[in-house]
Amino acid sequence: MTRRKIVLTGDRPTGPLHLGHFVGSLKNRVELQHTCDQFVMIADVQALTDHAEVPEKVRENVLQVALDYLAVGIDPTKSTVFIQSLIPALFELTIYYLNLITWNRLKHNPTVKQEIIQKGFGESVPAGFMVYPVSQAADITAFKADLVPVGEDQLPMIEQTNEIVRHFNRIYKAPVLVECQALIPKIARLPGTDGQAKMGKSLGNCIYLSDSADVVAKKVKGMYTDPNHLRVEDPGKVEGNPVFTYLDAFDTDTAVIQELKDHYSRGGLGDSVVKKRLNEVLQAFLEPIRQRREEYARDPAAVLSILRQGTEKANQRAHQTLMEVRQAMHLNY
Amino acid sequence: MTRRKIVLTGDRPTGPLHLGHFVGSLKNRVELQHTCDQFVMIADVQALTDHAEVPEKVRENVLQVALDYLAVGIDPTKSTVFIQSLIPALFELTIYYLNLITWNRLKHNPTVKQEIIQKGFGESVPAGFMVYPVSQAADITAFKADLVPVGEDQLPMIEQTNEIVRHFNRIYKAPVLVECQALIPKIARLPGTDGQAKMGKSLGNCIYLSDSADVVAKKVKGMYTDPNHLRVEDPGKVEGNPVFTYLDAFDTDTAVIQELKDHYSRGGLGDSVVKKRLNEVLQAFLEPIRQRREEYARDPAAVLSILRQGTEKANQRAHQTLMEVRQAMHLNY
Repeated sequence: MTRRKIVLTGDRPTGPLHLGHFVGSLKNRVELQHTCDQFVMIADVQALTDHAEVPEKVRENVLQVALDYLAVGIDPTKSTVFIQSLIPALFELTIYYLNLITWNRLKHNPTVKQEIIQKGFGESVPAGFMVYPVSQAADITAFKADLVPVGEDQLPMIEQTNEIVRHFNRIYKAPVLVECQALIPKIARLPGTDGQAKMGKSLGNCIYLSDSADVVAKKVKGMYTDPNHLRVEDPGKVEGNPVFTYLDAFDTDTAVIQELKDHYSRGGLGDSVVKKRLNEVLQAFLEPIRQRREEYARDPAAVLSILRQGTEKANQRAHQTLMEVRQAMHLNY
Repeated sequence: MTRRKIVLTGDRPTGPLHLGHFVGSLKNRVELQHTCDQFVMIADVQALTDHAEVPEKVRENVLQVALDYLAVGIDPTKSTVFIQSLIPALFELTIYYLNLITWNRLKHNPTVKQEIIQKGFGESVPAGFMVYPVSQAADITAFKADLVPVGEDQLPMIEQTNEIVRHFNRIYKAPVLVECQALIPKIARLPGTDGQAKMGKSLGNCIYLSDSADVVAKKVKGMYTDPNHLRVEDPGKVEGNPVFTYLDAFDTDTAVIQELKDHYSRGGLGDSVVKKRLNEVLQAFLEPIRQRREEYARDPAAVLSILRQGTEKANQRAHQTLMEVRQAMHLNY
């Protein structure tokens, strides 16, 4: 029997998860857990790198994200769900890895440079934010992950992790750390309800997994479509129309989608009809998720207990790696 | 009864300790341990920030530094001597504090800037080296140290620590961390045997606490004096003459020193006579230190046991602070 591949994945708990998360990562995780040894990290430490002043927000969202995970079908008997800040080895590995990478290299990380602009940090980037790629290397290597699901824009992170792995194994003359591969999801990013390329908490263009039926209906009704599709009889554009992108992502009846697309393109199909279909599809998709979420939410102690068990398992793995790291580094007192 | 002041001090274990260390810090520690609650850290993690590629050297010197401590009279029943890398709280605090300081602030730390030049890092400064002031802040605050003995050149480190303390207590609305004060030693730095301002391992101008009697005699004989004092009958310069600086530091008979100085200044006193006196003084000073060192060196298991006990006590303190920090940061799962 060949060893199962180890996967490390997770989210910064800075808000509830939305449909974009589902399409981009949650869906894959629910599949991967059947074939891989999957670690799902609630990255509270990483969230603090740009939320240091509002830790209560991070704290609160740890539970919310856990509820979202359980609601979509991440199965704690199959995936190891854990809280980052409760794994001491991750802090220690981060500090050791910081010595294996130059200050200049960190400064030129393209993903981080882009995020600094997006977040409007200007001259006041916290040092913790600049070094978070090293913290990620600690997360990935602590579990000896083979696969790390990331978007294309995160590829420099994976490269930086592998640089640290090679540097470590070379100078400490022991093949302790494992290089990882990026696992890029097939489905592209889900646009926001306003037509922007990305759903983002701060953009106010998300449909959350925890939204009520009414809220979802309202958000669908208000969705951006083809701005030139003014009268029902006009031909409308399907491409770049998020209502159709969502249907592609969530409607399993491809024949119906094709019919709607054709009709919309040649004219005579109102936005409201397509949106009605999308609303039905999303409600059918979200209803069982919402129900499971509510069930778990009624017993937060049980959810915390699941997190504690996952954290304990994760801790054992990470600690084992740390011991190997310390041995290789002659820190074996 | 007022609380004893807490002191944090220590050394990077990158080589054996020398007379410069004794005058600059060890002597003070032997005194402070009677009146303060003193923590003496063997800073192996900090040593790795510029010795990541030679961890075996750091590992080896942990024991050597411990032997030097015990030999000069740091008493493990009075001082808590511990190994930095065995205190997990220090790694975790460092990571949290990195979020409370900007990347730019770190870049402009004058002490670090100076050291980067001295160490010839150029463009390849390890990230770990750049952030070591934050690691120091973790060390100091973990023990809630009131006093930190440092040289004048280290004052920016203390200021940076106190900035982090104030920032933490303000944003987390809890007076968890304690501001510290620098304790600047009265006695200035001991020059090298070659007359350079500072004894330095890499300069090859040190007399080590562990040097044999023969080596000390040889080093004293070869010491730099007044380069213009060519013939015995010539007047010699006392100021800037390291032989006299050492006598001032180690000879307790001030009358004899004064006589030698006067005689040397007016001419007629050869360097060899002054050096003979210095050799006698240093041998008398070093002999009991050397003996104690050899005794301890015969039983390294006992030394490790002392370090383990100190580390355990240090761990309890640091862990207690970490728990308060996590509570204030809402990381209380």
